[in-house]
Amino acid sequence: MIRVSVLYPAKEKARFDWTYYLNQHVPLVGQRLGGAMKAITIEQGLAGGAPGSPPQYVAAAHLTFDSVEAFQAAIGPHGAELMGDVPNFSSIEPVIQVSEVKLAQ
Amino acid sequence: MIRVSVLYPAKEKARFDWTYYLNQHVPLVGQRLGGAMKAITIEQGLAGGAPGSPPQYVAAAHLTFDSVEAFQAAIGPHGAELMGDVPNFSSIEPVIQVSEVKLAQ
Repeated sequence: MIRVSVLYPAKEKARFDWTYYLNQHVPLVGQRLGGAMKAITIEQGLAGGAPGSPPQYVAAAHLTFDSVEAFQAAIGPHGAELMGDVPNFSSIEPVIQVSEVKLAQ
Repeated sequence: MIRVSVLYPAKEKARFDWTYYLNQHVPLVGQRLGGAMKAITIEQGLAGGAPGSPPQYVAAAHLTFDSVEAFQAAIGPHGAELMGDVPNFSSIEPVIQVSEVKLAQ
């Protein structure tokens, strides 16, 4: 199982429209990736580790797939459209990470 | 529901002992945080978003709690011990983020 994380770094004066993100972008991602996407979680950054510190990321999406190949096949025809939708809700360029899930319990 | 992410940034020549991490550190976290920790996932970084690019993080742990208060109560007596165990498996200082789970499906 692999996880694709789309992380939006917190930045001064950055724009992030949660209404559009949750009601338009995330459903679009679900439609385009279809059954290949086994799970999705969306997180809103609250704080860093030190008391009173700001979060590293405003938002994070974690998408689960069976394999890197399954993800690549699913994103291939839709990657440009999905990334092209980002400016509609945020001025932040997301950081993407692909990880192997070693433990999930 | 909130999630506490412990992210280990990839660094040149950094040490990360996966055997100790998975067999010693993660079980210790589970013992110390007990039932307050509702779920845990451990991820190993494979790649970044661009083809052939390295991952931002070598490792990531995501711990789920009912609330920030539940997390703080659970980590309070054990935070120093758990963070003090990090040098036993890694030379990397982790980045910690606390997030609210907006969607999990």
